[in-house]
Amino acid sequence: MSVRVYLSTEDAVVGEADAKISVFDRGFLFGDAVFETLRTVAGPRLLDGAAHLERLRRSAGRVGIDVPWADDTLEDVVRRTCVATGADEHQARVIVTRGQGPLLLDPRTATRPTLVVIAKPLSLPDPAVYRRGLDVVIVGTARSADGLLDATVKSANYLANVQALRIAAERGADDALLCSPRGTVTEGATSNVFCVVAGRLVTPPLDGSLLPGITRGVVCDLARRLGLAVEERPL
Amino acid sequence: MSVRVYLSTEDAVVGEADAKISVFDRGFLFGDAVFETLRTVAGPRLLDGAAHLERLRRSAGRVGIDVPWADDTLEDVVRRTCVATGADEHQARVIVTRGQGPLLLDPRTATRPTLVVIAKPLSLPDPAVYRRGLDVVIVGTARSADGLLDATVKSANYLANVQALRIAAERGADDALLCSPRGTVTEGATSNVFCVVAGRLVTPPLDGSLLPGITRGVVCDLARRLGLAVEERPL
Repeated sequence: MSVRVYLSTEDAVVGEADAKISVFDRGFLFGDAVFETLRTVAGPRLLDGAAHLERLRRSAGRVGIDVPWADDTLEDVVRRTCVATGADEHQARVIVTRGQGPLLLDPRTATRPTLVVIAKPLSLPDPAVYRRGLDVVIVGTARSADGLLDATVKSANYLANVQALRIAAERGADDALLCSPRGTVTEGATSNVFCVVAGRLVTPPLDGSLLPGITRGVVCDLARRLGLAVEERPL
Repeated sequence: MSVRVYLSTEDAVVGEADAKISVFDRGFLFGDAVFETLRTVAGPRLLDGAAHLERLRRSAGRVGIDVPWADDTLEDVVRRTCVATGADEHQARVIVTRGQGPLLLDPRTATRPTLVVIAKPLSLPDPAVYRRGLDVVIVGTARSADGLLDATVKSANYLANVQALRIAAERGADDALLCSPRGTVTEGATSNVFCVVAGRLVTPPLDGSLLPGITRGVVCDLARRLGLAVEERPL
C-alpha cells in the first residue's frame, strides 16, 4: 500500500518519487490553484464525489480557472489513482491549477490547466482521540468575506491556516479555531465547527466567512433526519 | 539566452524542462512558501541583494519557515543560476518553501526547506509604456493587516493579486490597485504606488497593510536626495 499520484502533464499515475510538477506551474509560483480533499470507501468509490466536484468547479469559477475535464473523467482519474495504491480506503486530493506560465502574475499567460490527483491510503485518528477530545485555541482571523479571495474558495492559499496550526502548537493545543473579522468563530484550520448548546446542534452560518464543508452539510442533514435540532448562527 | 532554475533538492542548475518539484512540496500543496523577486545588473550582480535577502528572512520568520542557507550561499546560488542563462541582466526569483511533507497541514511534518531560484533574462516594458502610462482600476481589498497572514509577508499566497489582475483585465485596464479594509489605496498587484500631489511625492505608509517594497524604499531615498518632498500618508 503506497501513495500514488496522477499527473495530467504526463497522463500517468506514478509513485511518490516520480510525482513532480514544473516549478513554472502557477500552483507552485502563486498558489494559483483550487482543490478538494475527499474520502473513498469500499475500494475506490468516492464519498460525496458529486458534491466535491461541484465545489471544485465553484472554487475554480470564482477565481477564473477553467476545469476542462468532465465529472466522469475526474471521477475516473481519482478511481484509477486509488486503485494503483493497493489500499481499500483513501484520502484523495484533487488539485486543479491554472497551469504553467512564464513567471508573470497575469493569469492570461497560462491557458492549459494542470490536474494532479493524490491518493493516500486512509489513516484515521486513534479512537482514543474521539473519547478524550482535542484541545483547541482561538487564534485569530484567517480571511475576510469581503476580500478579493473570499473564504468560500478552497484554494491553494492555505498559509494562514498553517499559521493557525503553528500558533495552536505553540500554545500546546491540538488544533486552531479561526474567526471572522467580527470576532465570531467560523471554522477549524481544516474542519468545520459544531457545538452542542442546550441540546441543540449549533454551527456558524454560510455567510461567506467560512468554507461550506461537504461533511458539514452531511452532518446537518443526518442530525435533522435523527430529529435533532440544528441551528445555524454566529458562535 | 534561456531560463535556468536552481533546485536545492538536486543541488543543480537545470533548464526549464527539467525544473520540477515534488507535488508533496508544501509550496505546491498549500502555498507554504516565501519568495523575493530581484534584478541583476552588469552580469549576475544582485541589485539591492542584501535588502531582498533580509526581507526574505523576515517573511520566512513571520510564518516560521527556517532559512538554513547563509546570505553568501544564497547570493552565490543566484549568481550561478544567472550565469547559466547566458544573459547580461536578469529577473531572479528566490523561493524558499517549508519543504516536502505527507499531505498534512501541520507545518511540523516538514523539516527540510526547499530552495528554488529562477533566473530569467531581463525583459523590460516597452519605453512607449512609460510615455503613455498605464490604465489602472481600483479593484478591492487584498489582505487585511490584522489577519493571521498579514500583508507584509511576501508569501506564495498570491491568488488575491491574481484575482485583482483578472478584474482589471475584465474592465479593460492594464493593472489593478488594491485597498486596505479602510478603503485607502495600498499597492498595485505587483508594485507599490506613488502619486505626485501638489508637487510632493506621496505614497501609502508602511502600516502593515502593504508590502514594504525594496524599490519603494529606493525611490523614497532617491527623491529625498534630489531634494523632492516625500510624504507617507494614506491615499
